[in-house]
Amino acid sequence: MSSDLRAFFDAVRPAVESSLDSLIPAKTTNPSRIHEAMRYSTLGGGKRVRPCLCAAAYSVWHEDWRPIIPVASAIEMIHAYSLIHDDLPAMDDDDFRRGKPSCHKQFGEPMAILAGDALLTLAFEVIARCDGFPPERLLKAIAALGRAAGTPAGMVAGQVLDLGLEGVPITPEQLERIHRSKTGALISVSVWIGAYLARASDHEIEHVAAFCDRIGLAFQVIDDILDATDGSNRDEGKVTYPTLHGLERSRALAHDLMQGARQAIAPIGPRTRLLVEFCDFLENRQH
Amino acid sequence: MSSDLRAFFDAVRPAVESSLDSLIPAKTTNPSRIHEAMRYSTLGGGKRVRPCLCAAAYSVWHEDWRPIIPVASAIEMIHAYSLIHDDLPAMDDDDFRRGKPSCHKQFGEPMAILAGDALLTLAFEVIARCDGFPPERLLKAIAALGRAAGTPAGMVAGQVLDLGLEGVPITPEQLERIHRSKTGALISVSVWIGAYLARASDHEIEHVAAFCDRIGLAFQVIDDILDATDGSNRDEGKVTYPTLHGLERSRALAHDLMQGARQAIAPIGPRTRLLVEFCDFLENRQH
Repeated sequence: MSSDLRAFFDAVRPAVESSLDSLIPAKTTNPSRIHEAMRYSTLGGGKRVRPCLCAAAYSVWHEDWRPIIPVASAIEMIHAYSLIHDDLPAMDDDDFRRGKPSCHKQFGEPMAILAGDALLTLAFEVIARCDGFPPERLLKAIAALGRAAGTPAGMVAGQVLDLGLEGVPITPEQLERIHRSKTGALISVSVWIGAYLARASDHEIEHVAAFCDRIGLAFQVIDDILDATDGSNRDEGKVTYPTLHGLERSRALAHDLMQGARQAIAPIGPRTRLLVEFCDFLENRQH
Repeated sequence: MSSDLRAFFDAVRPAVESSLDSLIPAKTTNPSRIHEAMRYSTLGGGKRVRPCLCAAAYSVWHEDWRPIIPVASAIEMIHAYSLIHDDLPAMDDDDFRRGKPSCHKQFGEPMAILAGDALLTLAFEVIARCDGFPPERLLKAIAALGRAAGTPAGMVAGQVLDLGLEGVPITPEQLERIHRSKTGALISVSVWIGAYLARASDHEIEHVAAFCDRIGLAFQVIDDILDATDGSNRDEGKVTYPTLHGLERSRALAHDLMQGARQAIAPIGPRTRLLVEFCDFLENRQH
C-alpha cells in the first residue's frame, strides 16, 4: 500500500469511528440495550472500506474530506445493519462476526432485528440532517443510497437471490447479478455519493459512474477469490466466481475490472491518484 | 363520521393504494418473491390512518391533496414494515394480520425480514425522489420521519420497551413513553409532514406540533380501550391504559387529549375542519 493511502486510512478510520460514536445514541440513553447493540455491531471493528471509498472520492474534489464523514458513516451504518440481519438464525445463521459473537448471540434475536432496523433508519436521518451540501444533491444521495440498499437492484435483492429464495439455478449472469446487487451496489454508491456531494460536474460523474460499475463487482469477485484460497470458506456448497469460472479466470476478471475502473476515472486527472491506489489496494488485499 | 370526512377517505384511500401499487416493484420484477411479499403486506388492506392524516393535514393549506400522496404512501410503507417485523416469531410471534397469514407465515421468515427491510428503505427513497416540494423541506421531512421511526424517541425504541427488552417495571410515565414512541411518533409525524410540506408557516407549525403531540398518544390510548372492551385482546397480561388507570379514566384522558388536539389547531382557522373531524372519527371509532 502506498504511504499516501496508508496515511489516508489512518486519518479517515478514526474520524469515521468518532462520527459513528457521536451519531449513534449513547449506551446511557434509554432504552439503553438497543443502543448498546447498535454500538456493539458498528463501533470498534471493520475495515471501513465503504466510508474510506466515499471519502477518497470526495477528496478528488476537496482536499479536506472531513465534511463527508457523517455521510460516509451513514453508509457504514447500512453496511452494519446488513451484517446484523444477514447473521440472523433465519438468514445465514452465523454465531460470530469479526471474531466476536454476532449481534443476536450477544443481545438476542429481537434486539438484533431492531438494532438493524434502527441503524438503517438512522442512516437516512443522518444524511437528511447534513449541513453544507446542496439540498437537491443530498436528496439524490438519499435516493441513490435507497436504491443501492433496497430492491430490485440493491442489497436486499442480492440477499434474496443469494439465499436462493428464488429457487433458480445459478448461471454466470445470475451470479454477476447477485454480486452486483448484494455487495457491488453499496460499494459503488459509496464512491458515487462521495463524488456527487463533492459537486463533481455531470461530465465527471459519468466517469465516476463507469468507475463504480467496475469496482463494485470487482470487490466481490476478489472476496470470492480470497474465500476460495484462505481455506476458511464456511459454506462449501456456495456458488462463487472461482467455483463457476476457476481461480485463474476469476483473477483475470478481477484484474480486468480493476483496470477498467482505473481507466474510467483517468480523464478526471491526477487528483484521482488516491482512488487509483485504492483500486490497487483492493486488488492486492489478502483478507 | 361527517359526509366530508367520508368523501375524503373514499378518495384518499384508493389514491394511496394506487400509489403504493406503482411505487413497489411489480410481482413480475426479478427477484419476484420479495416484491410479492412487500405487496402482500402493503396492498389491499389497512385503514390507511397515517396517509389519510398526512393528506388531511396537507389539505388544510392546499385543497388538492394529490401531490402529497407519494409521501403519505411512504409513511404507510414504514407502518407496513413495522407490522411485518413485529409479527416475526422472535418478536410478537403473530400468525395472522388483517385476517390473513402474516408475512412470515406466507413467505417464510427470511423473506419477511427482507421485505420489511426493503419497505423501510423504499420509504426514504420515495420521499427523496419527490418532485414539487422545496428540497430543504423534503430533507427535514426525511429527518423527522427517521426520528419517528427509529430510536431513542421513535417506533423502534417503543418496540424495545413494549417487548419488555429493557426489563423495567411499567409505571404510568413508562407506559406513556411506550405509547408515544411505539405508535404516537409515526401518527404525529404523519400530520407534521403533511403540514410542513404544504409550506405551513413557522407559526402554524407550532400549532400543528401541539396537535401532533396530543393526537399521537390519544390514538394509542383509544386502541388500548378498544382492546379492553372488544374482548379479543390476545395478550391478557399486557399493561395498558385501562389496566393501569381503569376504563373510565382512560376514556376521560383520551377525550381530554383529543379536545386538546382540536383546540391546538383552532387558531389556524376554519380550513382545519377536516382535521377536527378526523379527531372526532378517531375518538369514536369502534375498531
